[in-house]
Amino acid sequence: MPSELESCMESLIKVFHRYASKEGNSNSLSRRELKELMENELNTFLKSQKDPAAVDSIMKNLDTNGDGEVNFEEFVSLVVGLSIACEQCYQLHMKKQQAMK
Amino acid sequence: MPSELESCMESLIKVFHRYASKEGNSNSLSRRELKELMENELNTFLKSQKDPAAVDSIMKNLDTNGDGEVNFEEFVSLVVGLSIACEQCYQLHMKKQQAMK
Repeated sequence: MPSELESCMESLIKVFHRYASKEGNSNSLSRRELKELMENELNTFLKSQKDPAAVDSIMKNLDTNGDGEVNFEEFVSLVVGLSIACEQCYQLHMKKQQAMK
Repeated sequence: MPSELESCMESLIKVFHRYASKEGNSNSLSRRELKELMENELNTFLKSQKDPAAVDSIMKNLDTNGDGEVNFEEFVSLVVGLSIACEQCYQLHMKKQQAMK
């Protein structure tokens, strides 16, 4: 059985390809595929973005090689950025909890 | 209920802190904590490494700020590297499958 971390790596690949395979190049996300992925898989984060053009600006930031598509490496950098932000919140939360003791 | 991707981000944070909290600084992995994490959570990968000092060389590579500990950002870069390598294998596998059709 895979470990929790191995399952997580498998999920990253599966989720990416679930959306990337919908149209065009099956190894990268078009703008439409990225939008669908974010609406379904990162809905909490997307709702917190006040800018209605959030997906477009995220797409622009992620697409480091400028080909108008988001490949797996570019996609992972989004997940990493969000995870690091979440982990910083977690650390702050733990600090506050300890201070209250 | 969190999405598959959100659960995956939660797992990254949980697994890291499960080991980081064992000794010393609870927000970073010592060499011993990293070794334990890799033995339990990345066993398949660790077994594929022929170098018996694999954990030491991984530790050295991950510890970009050189403080002798691996923080969350440094840890995530290991998971990202492994995920990208796995995804490349997945792409190759899919190509071979399509060629056989």
